[in-house]
Amino acid sequence: MKIGLLTSGGDCPGLNAVIRGAVLEGIIEHGDEFVGFRDGWRGVVERDYFPITRHDVRGLSKTGGTILGSSRTNPFEGEFGGPDNIQWLMDREGIDVIVAIGGEGTLTAARRLYDEGGIKVLGVPKTIDNDLAATDYSFGFDTAVQIATEAIDRLRTTADSHGRCMVLEVMGRHVGWIALHSGMAGGAHAILIPEQPQSIDQIVEWVLQVRERGRAPLVVVAEGFTLPEMTEAHSTKGLDAFNRPRLGGIADVLAPLIEERTGIESRATVLGHIQRGGEPTAYDRVLATRLGMAVVKAAHREEWGQMVTLRGTDIKTVSIHEATGSLNTVPQERYDEAKVLFG
Amino acid sequence: MKIGLLTSGGDCPGLNAVIRGAVLEGIIEHGDEFVGFRDGWRGVVERDYFPITRHDVRGLSKTGGTILGSSRTNPFEGEFGGPDNIQWLMDREGIDVIVAIGGEGTLTAARRLYDEGGIKVLGVPKTIDNDLAATDYSFGFDTAVQIATEAIDRLRTTADSHGRCMVLEVMGRHVGWIALHSGMAGGAHAILIPEQPQSIDQIVEWVLQVRERGRAPLVVVAEGFTLPEMTEAHSTKGLDAFNRPRLGGIADVLAPLIEERTGIESRATVLGHIQRGGEPTAYDRVLATRLGMAVVKAAHREEWGQMVTLRGTDIKTVSIHEATGSLNTVPQERYDEAKVLFG
Amino acid sequence: MKIGLLTSGGDCPGLNAVIRGAVLEGIIEHGDEFVGFRDGWRGVVERDYFPITRHDVRGLSKTGGTILGSSRTNPFEGEFGGPDNIQWLMDREGIDVIVAIGGEGTLTAARRLYDEGGIKVLGVPKTIDNDLAATDYSFGFDTAVQIATEAIDRLRTTADSHGRCMVLEVMGRHVGWIALHSGMAGGAHAILIPEQPQSIDQIVEWVLQVRERGRAPLVVVAEGFTLPEMTEAHSTKGLDAFNRPRLGGIADVLAPLIEERTGIESRATVLGHIQRGGEPTAYDRVLATRLGMAVVKAAHREEWGQMVTLRGTDIKTVSIHEATGSLNTVPQERYDEAKVLFG
Amino acid sequence: MKIGLLTSGGDCPGLNAVIRGAVLEGIIEHGDEFVGFRDGWRGVVERDYFPITRHDVRGLSKTGGTILGSSRTNPFEGEFGGPDNIQWLMDREGIDVIVAIGGEGTLTAARRLYDEGGIKVLGVPKTIDNDLAATDYSFGFDTAVQIATEAIDRLRTTADSHGRCMVLEVMGRHVGWIALHSGMAGGAHAILIPEQPQSIDQIVEWVLQVRERGRAPLVVVAEGFTLPEMTEAHSTKGLDAFNRPRLGGIADVLAPLIEERTGIESRATVLGHIQRGGEPTAYDRVLATRLGMAVVKAAHREEWGQMVTLRGTDIKTVSIHEATGSLNTVPQERYDEAKVLFG
Repeated sequence: MKIGLLTSGGDCPGLNAVIRGAVLEGIIEHGDEFVGFRDGWRGVVERDYFPITRHDVRGLSKTGGTILGSSRTNPFEGEFGGPDNIQWLMDREGIDVIVAIGGEGTLTAARRLYDEGGIKVLGVPKTIDNDLAATDYSFGFDTAVQIATEAIDRLRTTADSHGRCMVLEVMGRHVGWIALHSGMAGGAHAILIPEQPQSIDQIVEWVLQVRERGRAPLVVVAEGFTLPEMTEAHSTKGLDAFNRPRLGGIADVLAPLIEERTGIESRATVLGHIQRGGEPTAYDRVLATRLGMAVVKAAHREEWGQMVTLRGTDIKTVSIHEATGSLNTVPQERYDEAKVLFG
Repeated sequence: MKIGLLTSGGDCPGLNAVIRGAVLEGIIEHGDEFVGFRDGWRGVVERDYFPITRHDVRGLSKTGGTILGSSRTNPFEGEFGGPDNIQWLMDREGIDVIVAIGGEGTLTAARRLYDEGGIKVLGVPKTIDNDLAATDYSFGFDTAVQIATEAIDRLRTTADSHGRCMVLEVMGRHVGWIALHSGMAGGAHAILIPEQPQSIDQIVEWVLQVRERGRAPLVVVAEGFTLPEMTEAHSTKGLDAFNRPRLGGIADVLAPLIEERTGIESRATVLGHIQRGGEPTAYDRVLATRLGMAVVKAAHREEWGQMVTLRGTDIKTVSIHEATGSLNTVPQERYDEAKVLFG
Repeated sequence: MKIGLLTSGGDCPGLNAVIRGAVLEGIIEHGDEFVGFRDGWRGVVERDYFPITRHDVRGLSKTGGTILGSSRTNPFEGEFGGPDNIQWLMDREGIDVIVAIGGEGTLTAARRLYDEGGIKVLGVPKTIDNDLAATDYSFGFDTAVQIATEAIDRLRTTADSHGRCMVLEVMGRHVGWIALHSGMAGGAHAILIPEQPQSIDQIVEWVLQVRERGRAPLVVVAEGFTLPEMTEAHSTKGLDAFNRPRLGGIADVLAPLIEERTGIESRATVLGHIQRGGEPTAYDRVLATRLGMAVVKAAHREEWGQMVTLRGTDIKTVSIHEATGSLNTVPQERYDEAKVLFG
Repeated sequence: MKIGLLTSGGDCPGLNAVIRGAVLEGIIEHGDEFVGFRDGWRGVVERDYFPITRHDVRGLSKTGGTILGSSRTNPFEGEFGGPDNIQWLMDREGIDVIVAIGGEGTLTAARRLYDEGGIKVLGVPKTIDNDLAATDYSFGFDTAVQIATEAIDRLRTTADSHGRCMVLEVMGRHVGWIALHSGMAGGAHAILIPEQPQSIDQIVEWVLQVRERGRAPLVVVAEGFTLPEMTEAHSTKGLDAFNRPRLGGIADVLAPLIEERTGIESRATVLGHIQRGGEPTAYDRVLATRLGMAVVKAAHREEWGQMVTLRGTDIKTVSIHEATGSLNTVPQERYDEAKVLFG
């Protein structure tokens, strides 16, 4: 079998481990051949690809980034985009299946290529935010949580030494998993996530409770959190709570508000890109390797239109159709559980 | 409710996070009181205990070890051992339930106290080896895998620079989970676990395959692995494959055998205690915190004789009776999956 | 001897190790007593202090922050400020010497207390930026460089995967040591420091050279770096290169400028407070412990008005008078050395 | 200029950073060419070498191991060994100088080639143990200390939880620098080094003092430490203190002795090869890069027979002749300083 691989969307620790897992499973177990499309769907629609050998994936399980490159190109656009062009290319090159490693957008595009054009595709879910409902956890998430937790550990000592309130902004545009887990691991005094809007009054109450117990408050906030005071217009238009143009993240909005309301010196840290680059944790390496191996097994079972997922300790396959469309939000009980530790 | 806590058996990263989770859930949500028994069941049978306050658990989620101390004392032995004495103590102190955080032995003892004496107990499974079947993963395991993986990463560069074979021994007396996961994460060329005896001939074949591909072989072996050449008598009597008294671990047996058979300079590293001490990973902190919180919730539901476990992404309770007795071994399909990457 | 300790100014990994080193040296070797002033000079001028015992410093070598707290209070201000009040307090409490652990400002204040009021003081230099000329390296600096280097390692994989330019802002208000060392350790393609203004044209040239060699450019910039295009008025008034109010750091100015000029997608990361909190590296723990021990030895030699410093591998004492006033800037030859690796 | 590079002896974090520093300095600043000899002097005497390009050293500052490979071959032996053969090879290939990156043995061999045969050589000192007197610190040492310190941090929690004595064996065959620094950084209660024999009675006394203060003793021992009770015959013949054959390290001798004498359960951990492999710390990357750059500058100054060293914050050159022959032992005052913290 000849398998085309592509990685698409934002960086995510474990991408290379998926590639290595797929290539080794394919070459060693099935005698497969592999080609890599450069920079996600761009490599498909611009016909930019290269053979991947066993040697190419040597030592990859520990490395960050992706040897295939990435982009946000849409496979339905461009000169050679769309199912017909892609099928033509696959026929010419003898490519039996395209394995798309990517997030919601990438997988939805893959599904459409299959639904509308009968393109043989398989998916591997990639989301640092852990926002895909079809999988218990996605690779990269554990690494992001670990990095955010280490940042909390470091900020805490400074907070305590200076009696300051520290506000750490972590990733999570639509869901608060990274904030929830790192906040729980790091012992944060408030965790603010997109799924659970909290008023500034509530946040201030938590912060003051912490101060009353003689401690320095530590607030973890997901980038997608909004104050109810920030109308939707504000947040989409990039205006802050006071109608000023927003620059920086939500942490930059919260820290001065907290300081103003509580009188506690407050500082914002926006963790940013370091959460999604670099060496994956052992957990993510194992998960990514297994997903990569499983997607090749699924190819040999000809389960077109499916993606691989983690359920409990098992790797399963599920229709991309079912897997996309619904967001893996933090359930109320998980937030309630964490909230006990607030304040 | 007044809750007695104890930690028993070997050290395990996350013990303190369990304690913190339990104490905060109890104090904040239910107005509970807590006492800690010193050094596991020893504190029970020697009536050595102290109140635990909210202040005592401050900052504990990230610390290794256990503030309660640990031992391997059997609660049925000693001057004040056995159900009657323990019940008397609980009555005197108004302790409603004893929460035992420990492994197979500890939980079995707890179960017997409940079965035979009606002692109100609850369990939290603690096993660095991940050998309890009732839970998908146990806290401490992820940290051990991470440490072992980092060791593999370091050994690999030396192996490659010198063209050597490195043999790393990791924990796992009866099951090979740490070896399996760290070996997969680190890209080991052979993973040897108790569940899957392999002849020295097979190991040598894997090692030689690696050399033929121009790489330096890296073998990960669980401490409980035995060569079929080592009869049970040998391994239990501490004799090595050649009937010499065994000193050091199985890695110290394998490295010279591999060197002798392949001519490749081979070195053993026994990772030892550093796998079970120190700061837990974020994953283990979250899991341990949730288990600690859940066991207090179970106490308020009066689920005596139960223990808390992880199933998928949920914390469940299960009868200790069912949970103990069967070992969580590495299933054949997980070993087969990993084996594709060997050689 | 009775020794008063205080820590002043911004957080710095190793403060607790200094305290531990001083207290153990004093108690064990000399039978000294210790008091800690809370929150730096505030504890002195508000007479807020407490005895420090051997037990209090247990396990401190590895912890971040300072058990004494910190502030930026000036000892010449406040109700009980100034030499006369401080001498009165020291006489009343039998305090023989005040050991001030702090940066340029703290040490200068200590020197004035000694010069103008004869207050027996000793200094321990504390500067995360390594900007004190009297010491080869100051504790905390190595930790900050390590954290910044790990951030570069992580950003690099994302840069490479996306073909982006990453701009990382690290600490260094007046001197560029953290940028220089982390940039060299991480293999940055341009290092921008306050001592070496570079035009945006030069920066763009370096970035384009990197792109021409097929790599993703990585720029490390110290927070105090300014473009010559930014007049002093701009930078002090918080205006950016285009006269807009500056929000965020210099990286937030540079990344869009680079993107505009080169067409390479560019992203800014401002590392911020995580560089100055948390666990010190082994290097900083050793240095801090030795400085703490040495300052107590200096007290017993009655070297008032001196501070301890690192010279080569030795701890020396030097007059605070000489030690302050001149900045430890990056010398031209060190920048030239690093510059070879640019582009 | 055409420069031949070789790395020799045991693995050491930073070797690749030296190679990268040298190659970039040479190619960018001087238009040099580089060849790498495979596996140290073996590549010289077996004429096994290859060109090194700028591309080959990409990303090397952070990687462990050496892309040149290593061995313990003696350049005076083998078919093409000795000055005449080596000069012939250099003439044929137009190699102007051989840069030897290695320890005492390698440098001494290089010096002899220069002294006896006029071979143009330059040296870069490489010793994980920090045992070369000519340099303040050697690259790799800081990484080894950091790894050993992290191991101490982990062991400590287990020691405290179980009330055990932990004995950690670190590298240091002839000198105790790694033990001294990691022991000081980790807060060890006894540090045992080759330079300072201590009787088992003294060790037991320290251990008991720790226990009396209610703490769990932590002993760090360098591999080259011997008990005076172990006569030289014993240690060289591999007999332990009781005339039994020694297997494992000195920690395996000490732990049972301490347990026997104190009644405190004691456990040995031998850290082994993980100290010398893998990613270098930022400190070591900077030092190694600077040494690599400096040795190429020295080549262009034609300072044959010299090696580069660190003195304070400067890189200097010194005659290999002077630099070898004397061991950089831990001075009495450094041990006395550390000893204050014992017990």
